Amino acid sequence: MDRLTGRTQMEKERDINILVTGGAGVIGSSLVKKLSGQITVTDNLSSSSSDPIADLIASNKVKFVRGDVRNLRLMKELTKDIDLVVHLAANGDVRYSPEKGTKLDTMVNTVGTFNVLEAMRVNDVKKIIFSSSSSVYGRASQIPTPETYGPLIPESLYASSKIGAEALILSFSKMFSFKAYIFRFANIVSSNFRKVGRNVIPDFVMKLKDNPKTLEVLGNGHQKKSYLYVDDCINGMLYASAKSRRDIDIFNLANIDSIEVKEIAKIVIEEMGLVNTRIKYTGGEAGWLGDVPISILDIKKVTELGWTPKLNSMEAVRKSARGIIRSISIRRS
Amino acid sequence: MDRLTGRTQMEKERDINILVTGGAGVIGSSLVKKLSGQITVTDNLSSSSSDPIADLIASNKVKFVRGDVRNLRLMKELTKDIDLVVHLAANGDVRYSPEKGTKLDTMVNTVGTFNVLEAMRVNDVKKIIFSSSSSVYGRASQIPTPETYGPLIPESLYASSKIGAEALILSFSKMFSFKAYIFRFANIVSSNFRKVGRNVIPDFVMKLKDNPKTLEVLGNGHQKKSYLYVDDCINGMLYASAKSRRDIDIFNLANIDSIEVKEIAKIVIEEMGLVNTRIKYTGGEAGWLGDVPISILDIKKVTELGWTPKLNSMEAVRKSARGIIRSISIRRS
Repeated sequence: MDRLTGRTQMEKERDINILVTGGAGVIGSSLVKKLSGQITVTDNLSSSSSDPIADLIASNKVKFVRGDVRNLRLMKELTKDIDLVVHLAANGDVRYSPEKGTKLDTMVNTVGTFNVLEAMRVNDVKKIIFSSSSSVYGRASQIPTPETYGPLIPESLYASSKIGAEALILSFSKMFSFKAYIFRFANIVSSNFRKVGRNVIPDFVMKLKDNPKTLEVLGNGHQKKSYLYVDDCINGMLYASAKSRRDIDIFNLANIDSIEVKEIAKIVIEEMGLVNTRIKYTGGEAGWLGDVPISILDIKKVTELGWTPKLNSMEAVRKSARGIIRSISIRRS
Repeated sequence: MDRLTGRTQMEKERDINILVTGGAGVIGSSLVKKLSGQITVTDNLSSSSSDPIADLIASNKVKFVRGDVRNLRLMKELTKDIDLVVHLAANGDVRYSPEKGTKLDTMVNTVGTFNVLEAMRVNDVKKIIFSSSSSVYGRASQIPTPETYGPLIPESLYASSKIGAEALILSFSKMFSFKAYIFRFANIVSSNFRKVGRNVIPDFVMKLKDNPKTLEVLGNGHQKKSYLYVDDCINGMLYASAKSRRDIDIFNLANIDSIEVKEIAKIVIEEMGLVNTRIKYTGGEAGWLGDVPISILDIKKVTELGWTPKLNSMEAVRKSARGIIRSISIRRS
């Protein structure tokens, strides 16, 4: 019995049917390995592959359906006889680029969430766990930022699409009696990484592989955020959604500490065994258009339920860096 | 020079080109009459007609294009050479019904707003005024509710679609340097009324026309809200958007007081000259699924700029009731 993961409750629920959208992604694929029950994973594989869950698919522990949350008809098919939806599918690339355009966040993250909810309503699915984002807070005037902070002034289209998705989940839950647990994630780091919309650690590793002498860091290096290791993230979601006494609840899910981007650069350089790497900052307090320079969440609400992360931000970053460096070395060799 | 409407500033801006979406609606048609500049109105007329602005169209003061915010291509055409968009178009019917379905709010109010913003971005339009709703606060634990209240837990799909729209406006404004003024409206009342999604006053008038002996009131009659006359609403929007010192701002726009539904029933009965009408309450604290029983907004932010409504809630309701009764009598005679 693991007090931190709430698995005893999950164990009791071996017979429940779970749909995980975005279940092949960095968070999804780790989550699926920890879930009990009959699991269906759907993912459009736009920024992932089904490799991380290939064993589970092969052994029939997981049913995999390649598909997109923008397809309402498919969502209606996939939610038949489902008891719980863990809705992780999203365009996870926070940065805007003219090539990418503006439409993806709204259509995948907001309208896609509408489709999942409408499918749940039609098929009488009564529980959803959702991965939102600390980006919803924008440049909050209150640090650390609690769940009650308002108004939410998003800095990116990604952040606004998550606000729209949260609002839809809350209203569907109120109107059609779903249970809903929304998690506003800090930066979730992992030894695995996305093909598209790379996070800071794989970004640094790749850059240093190409040029070990100079590392370009976006912004002034003082962007300060909280980093949570993927296993802690998953434990936190399962734990809080099991322990919450409310039918509808919103939780910040972040680390107890936060670190600056310049510290991440140093960790990655160290872990790669480099010594004379020069760090070049592009300058400016934000790394890119839509970036939030300081993101520190108040996690009292979730820690008061009894959850704490096993790795702090520094440890989470180091473990991720190590894993990513190893996996890239293996791929390239 | 009217200190309350900010019209001096508008007068100076005679040459600006303004697009008003939803400009044939109850609020839009009143607004259009007060605006200076070259005005284009677009409206799909789903819950209104162009009659209220027929004179302005006939005299070429307003260009009218029947159209829908769900049509991105049309929005791109209409925002060419525009300086300001007043975005009022919305599915304004807050109530859910199985016949209406769940999709309309998200597609019209959220995705429609996306289309307006994307069109603005493409055509370099740099200012938007938006009609949001006090419904975004849901059953707020803080009464009166300030703009900083969080988290927003919407009770209706309408409310969540407005949260999604607000978030989109804020992120587009942050990323592409728009000025944005968002107004969270109380119940806006008027002598005019919508064909679809009737508000409480025309609803009572119609019911009493059919049966003057008994008036059925949804809920227990104690739902308490703030009612703002349409002219005050328009003055407030123009005033606050002109006086705000911020490029992006959110304002509650409501009355200084609030009244119960049972008082509205009494006013309508009085104004119709009825004496022995029995009021029958359907019971329950909310009038319908998604209703918020108590909605009282903190309006310090807008009143500190110097704006105050001319009519209080009671006066606004009485004036509206009188106008609606008269117009229905004329139509039926």
